[in-house]
Amino acid sequence: MTREQLTEKIRDIKRERGWTWRFIAREIGGMSEILIVGALLGQGKLVKPLARKAARLFGLAESEERMLNETPCRGTSMPPTDPLLYRFHELTMVNGPALKAIIEEEFGDGIMSAIDFDMEISRLANRGGDRVKIVMSGKFLPYKYYGATEETPEYGFREG
Amino acid sequence: MTREQLTEKIRDIKRERGWTWRFIAREIGGMSEILIVGALLGQGKLVKPLARKAARLFGLAESEERMLNETPCRGTSMPPTDPLLYRFHELTMVNGPALKAIIEEEFGDGIMSAIDFDMEISRLANRGGDRVKIVMSGKFLPYKYYGATEETPEYGFREG
Amino acid sequence: MTREQLTEKIRDIKRERGWTWRFIAREIGGMSEILIVGALLGQGKLVKPLARKAARLFGLAESEERMLNETPCRGTSMPPTDPLLYRFHELTMVNGPALKAIIEEEFGDGIMSAIDFDMEISRLANRGGDRVKIVMSGKFLPYKYYGATEETPEYGFREG
Amino acid sequence: MTREQLTEKIRDIKRERGWTWRFIAREIGGMSEILIVGALLGQGKLVKPLARKAARLFGLAESEERMLNETPCRGTSMPPTDPLLYRFHELTMVNGPALKAIIEEEFGDGIMSAIDFDMEISRLANRGGDRVKIVMSGKFLPYKYYGATEETPEYGFREG
Amino acid sequence: MTREQLTEKIRDIKRERGWTWRFIAREIGGMSEILIVGALLGQGKLVKPLARKAARLFGLAESEERMLNETPCRGTSMPPTDPLLYRFHELTMVNGPALKAIIEEEFGDGIMSAIDFDMEISRLANRGGDRVKIVMSGKFLPYKYYGATEETPEYGFREG
Amino acid sequence: MTREQLTEKIRDIKRERGWTWRFIAREIGGMSEILIVGALLGQGKLVKPLARKAARLFGLAESEERMLNETPCRGTSMPPTDPLLYRFHELTMVNGPALKAIIEEEFGDGIMSAIDFDMEISRLANRGGDRVKIVMSGKFLPYKYYGATEETPEYGFREG
Amino acid sequence: MTREQLTEKIRDIKRERGWTWRFIAREIGGMSEILIVGALLGQGKLVKPLARKAARLFGLAESEERMLNETPCRGTSMPPTDPLLYRFHELTMVNGPALKAIIEEEFGDGIMSAIDFDMEISRLANRGGDRVKIVMSGKFLPYKYYGATEETPEYGFREG
Amino acid sequence: MTREQLTEKIRDIKRERGWTWRFIAREIGGMSEILIVGALLGQGKLVKPLARKAARLFGLAESEERMLNETPCRGTSMPPTDPLLYRFHELTMVNGPALKAIIEEEFGDGIMSAIDFDMEISRLANRGGDRVKIVMSGKFLPYKYYGATEETPEYGFREG
Amino acid sequence: MTREQLTEKIRDIKRERGWTWRFIAREIGGMSEILIVGALLGQGKLVKPLARKAARLFGLAESEERMLNETPCRGTSMPPTDPLLYRFHELTMVNGPALKAIIEEEFGDGIMSAIDFDMEISRLANRGGDRVKIVMSGKFLPYKYYGATEETPEYGFREG
Amino acid sequence: MTREQLTEKIRDIKRERGWTWRFIAREIGGMSEILIVGALLGQGKLVKPLARKAARLFGLAESEERMLNETPCRGTSMPPTDPLLYRFHELTMVNGPALKAIIEEEFGDGIMSAIDFDMEISRLANRGGDRVKIVMSGKFLPYKYYGATEETPEYGFREG
Repeated sequence: MTREQLTEKIRDIKRERGWTWRFIAREIGGMSEILIVGALLGQGKLVKPLARKAARLFGLAESEERMLNETPCRGTSMPPTDPLLYRFHELTMVNGPALKAIIEEEFGDGIMSAIDFDMEISRLANRGGDRVKIVMSGKFLPYKYYGATEETPEYGFREG
Repeated sequence: MTREQLTEKIRDIKRERGWTWRFIAREIGGMSEILIVGALLGQGKLVKPLARKAARLFGLAESEERMLNETPCRGTSMPPTDPLLYRFHELTMVNGPALKAIIEEEFGDGIMSAIDFDMEISRLANRGGDRVKIVMSGKFLPYKYYGATEETPEYGFREG
Repeated sequence: MTREQLTEKIRDIKRERGWTWRFIAREIGGMSEILIVGALLGQGKLVKPLARKAARLFGLAESEERMLNETPCRGTSMPPTDPLLYRFHELTMVNGPALKAIIEEEFGDGIMSAIDFDMEISRLANRGGDRVKIVMSGKFLPYKYYGATEETPEYGFREG
Repeated sequence: MTREQLTEKIRDIKRERGWTWRFIAREIGGMSEILIVGALLGQGKLVKPLARKAARLFGLAESEERMLNETPCRGTSMPPTDPLLYRFHELTMVNGPALKAIIEEEFGDGIMSAIDFDMEISRLANRGGDRVKIVMSGKFLPYKYYGATEETPEYGFREG
Repeated sequence: MTREQLTEKIRDIKRERGWTWRFIAREIGGMSEILIVGALLGQGKLVKPLARKAARLFGLAESEERMLNETPCRGTSMPPTDPLLYRFHELTMVNGPALKAIIEEEFGDGIMSAIDFDMEISRLANRGGDRVKIVMSGKFLPYKYYGATEETPEYGFREG
Repeated sequence: MTREQLTEKIRDIKRERGWTWRFIAREIGGMSEILIVGALLGQGKLVKPLARKAARLFGLAESEERMLNETPCRGTSMPPTDPLLYRFHELTMVNGPALKAIIEEEFGDGIMSAIDFDMEISRLANRGGDRVKIVMSGKFLPYKYYGATEETPEYGFREG
Repeated sequence: MTREQLTEKIRDIKRERGWTWRFIAREIGGMSEILIVGALLGQGKLVKPLARKAARLFGLAESEERMLNETPCRGTSMPPTDPLLYRFHELTMVNGPALKAIIEEEFGDGIMSAIDFDMEISRLANRGGDRVKIVMSGKFLPYKYYGATEETPEYGFREG
Repeated sequence: MTREQLTEKIRDIKRERGWTWRFIAREIGGMSEILIVGALLGQGKLVKPLARKAARLFGLAESEERMLNETPCRGTSMPPTDPLLYRFHELTMVNGPALKAIIEEEFGDGIMSAIDFDMEISRLANRGGDRVKIVMSGKFLPYKYYGATEETPEYGFREG
Repeated sequence: MTREQLTEKIRDIKRERGWTWRFIAREIGGMSEILIVGALLGQGKLVKPLARKAARLFGLAESEERMLNETPCRGTSMPPTDPLLYRFHELTMVNGPALKAIIEEEFGDGIMSAIDFDMEISRLANRGGDRVKIVMSGKFLPYKYYGATEETPEYGFREG
Repeated sequence: MTREQLTEKIRDIKRERGWTWRFIAREIGGMSEILIVGALLGQGKLVKPLARKAARLFGLAESEERMLNETPCRGTSMPPTDPLLYRFHELTMVNGPALKAIIEEEFGDGIMSAIDFDMEISRLANRGGDRVKIVMSGKFLPYKYYGATEETPEYGFREG
């Protein structure tokens, strides 16, 4: 059994039962909707109690429940061909240079973590048409400059 | 003169003067910092009054000012090799399936616009380490189903 | 069940029954032919009443009908190897620079939407050989320049 | 001298003079705007009298005038990173299967020519936002089935 | 059923019966050998009477016969890994610049059609080793320069 | 000096003098037009007496003459973006499977040489539009099956 | 049945019987070990008597025996991920420029044939560690310069 | 001025002076050798006091010193063609599955940071030939499972 | 049976039994954990006694045991999409230039072997968060400069 | 100065002086011709006394002599477009599976070193046309199976 087969099975059951992702995420609970849906789609892991709830909800076998508790091989093929996903790809392509310049100026040499990372999606009512609002925050991780007798103290400050 | 040459010249002047992007963005004003920095880095256009301010600030020639007012060929090569940028690429790769599922369930068949789009970056103080906070919102654009005598009315609603 | 399997099944039934796409599109109705055929080939969604009609026409199971009502992962692999499709690819490659120059000069900084988009294909009788006529129109989406106290008013006008 | 250098020179002169493409296309005349702009951007050829007019307008040397009369190496790198151009790429990706099905059903086995091809861009006023309208027509070229004593007569008809 | 499955089935039957392609092409007739073999290998379409003959020869079901009458998705993955095919790829790579220069000088701005195209393969007896002789001819298609009040008359002539 | 620089210089001189390739090929002589033009465009070598003639014709320096006598690094980037060249690429893609089947059936296991290879381009007058005729012949090279005490005798025959 | 399926079957039988490739090659005989193993792994053809021997050894069906007598679609995906194979890839990458320079200086403009080609692998005992010795020889094929009234006589000689 | 130009200048000075990287790293000090060399080669940033030392050592202009203090666009093209670098690429390719399995079993769902990361290279004397020893350590970053009322407590533990 | 199928079977059994890789590696023994896990995941070979132990542990058939004793086709597709693996890829990309400079300065012209190579993974307790520690050592292999009457003696020494 | 610029300079001098690679290799001496030519073409290093000889021969500056003594970034872009080089690429593609099978059966699990590697090119007189003979030998490097209390003794033997 591969994770792809399990994902397809979960999608099939969801379709047959006529469930929404929101319903499924609430039934399983314990994490944000995007993390639960991501795990069910093969991009994340459900910790044991959540895997158990998911298994009960979908009527999975024990080995399938255990597979949901495994860290999958994350990631999907790029660039995305799907228009909804491509727009996110484009945002990185177009805003990349400015994101790098502004984050490094504000935080110093480092990155926004994609691991200690949180994301929320919501609907923003708007007269000109509702908007998709995404709030994300990732811990800033400064590059560590190891190897000096006393660790070089400057990193992590804005040096501008 | 290519836009790449102009971008390099702007980076050189910024370095020589010891300016920050924040200072530059405030001097030019009229748009969010990320849009101004993006335009100066060759990923966007400055409307005429802003291009004029930028030209005065950097001491640019008139043809350079006009080039800042042109829409450049946006986009950078992917996947990014730079770690800061790669993390955004990874977020799309890993969260793509859940983003698609959740947005389509909430809004229907369509996309979050990358054109009618707003993004703000800020610092989130946190005892466990400050966080990079990014708030983005894009207008939801529903796929239009043309061609019926009366336009099919269902799209744009959640059908779950 | 994957969408590819459903598409193959639909193609098989069409072949066995000896139907044309035109016949199928008329039976289902409610949208332009290209949208209906696209959805049946796995590149779009049929709203519920149309999915029901398609299911009745093809004798599909309920879960198959529901799958037709799901937004698929759109997009096909590029560049196309098929000559008919490659010609469209070539048109973008060869006319890209002029399209960009002319649209931006006429409309300002922005794009032609591929979402709020309509396309019609017809036959143009011609003594030198009939022609394929394609009329497409997409809503012009101007880049929004957010972040100013008062939104910068210039965008959307031709600045030439 | 390469064609890329000539294109850059033409863009530089246009910027300095503050000309629009429309003005340039009218000055040169004799072909549609998209063909003239395409040729000036290195994607097409200007026949001799048009190359002469372009040379006079831009003040080009004789060898530059002759280069405009040469067929360049057409085509640009794909997929486009620029959002305006990417939308055309996406349209081919998403509508490809339906375009192929519908054109072949209507015309038989063949292609829409990208050589005997005409394209017009115009603005479509619309209360919901103006639209970019593109009308294209290409001669239908049926695959020729050579080699029979009498050429197989069926091709070119709809066989549905 | 996919076209690839049908191609594999045809190859299997040919192998079991010990037929040659020449025998098969003669049995089906009506087109050149290369077109018939290409269609059976999934790169072309057999018009109805030929599909019927092929179906009788191979003992195919009616839906398989109909599939042979469908235009397949032409094209194979490139560059070819097979040495026989790679040599053709190499010929395009190495002779491309000269082919372009000579054809454009002789015929003007345009292409050799790959649709209205004929190809014959034969053996050329030679004391130094027999040679593969390939004669191909494709209709020259001049780029059409549309859009003038009177169509620009120069194209199609040699302008050298 | 690189071969690309020499090629660009030769193109510049040709343009300034208003020469055709045909004229150049006749002046140099001694090989087919396609080989001479190919060599001047950096895809082949001119043997010494021909390099000398070319150098005199173009007024080249001695080191440039010697460079024309060097075997260049042949080959151009693929797939070609230029429509004229792409059609040859497409012919390999679409006709590849049939070419392989027919050549191997006629000649046995081997290839058509791209080295001991001859190609002629001519114009084929035709009421439906003139045609580009290309006649190519390459020596058939059978795969050699080495290593037996007596060389296996079957190869090179048709085994059908 | 595809050639890949036959290769997998042959590998399975070899594993079950505990045979070595050397044993298999000797049983089949008639060609060098590398050619026989290559053919069994789907990269070559066994002439009829050898295919018959292989079929008897492995207990293959008649259609499988015939498939071994077919020229397969040669070639494997590159670059190789396997370290043993990658080293050969690296040798071409690193030694390519010198190989080209030396072979062309010694033999003139041409190539070492990969078709009329022989290769032997042996073990070279060595105190510092045994060595893999590979002796290969390919017929030198000079580029033919066709098209002159009298064929240009210089090619094939060293012109240094 | 680009970072690549500065890197080339630094390499030129190093060569002219006959310095070793070890000497340079000791003169600049304050970080491990690999970080200093990496920054001088355009893959990292030198904090201000180190950039000043480097500038004095190499006799750089003030704008060059400031550029060394900027975070560059990190990353190099992959896969590496150089054999020394390729071996590291291969180690990731071959050991990837086991690294993922063992790290996730020991630490839970997360990654080894490439930012809070330290690496030392040393020589390991060995009778069978000296060895390159590399000790690396990166902080383990557990995937954060946000969004529950109480943060799900299980992550970060081994769940085996 | 392919190695991928065997790997999937081993993963399935491990999941059903609830075993850890550590337990499995200890049961099989005889090599480091990373080599055993790598072999079970299809990236290495188990010598016969270890393959036997693995077969008994997992209840494999004899042909499966023999397959574990075969050298697989090593390597996985790159770049890795999985974040844990990508960090290793990034380390090579970012540290490549410094690794090459430092190793060549210390050891001379050559590489760190990826074949005579050892790697250990351990947990490094740390108040700021535990760290993944990886110690690797590979034999330095100097490029051999063959071909002189007396082998050139300098290689292998630092020439700084 | 980059290594590519030095390589181009060396090629220019060679052309102007009319030298052969053989002459140059003999003048420099001390290593095989292929290694010396490779180093001069930017794919290897000349140890100090050889770099000195090369510098004298070509009249290079001291910094250029030192650059010849540096290990370059080896490797060239693949797949090769040049026919002579492509044939080597093809040999790896086509013979890869057999090479892997035969070397592993004869030597066990490991590789032929591309570092401790020797290659000689010579001309093999042959009535059917002279042949390029290449003799290569690389040290066999067995995969080391570390980590057992007593190193597993089986590797390196043929286990067939």
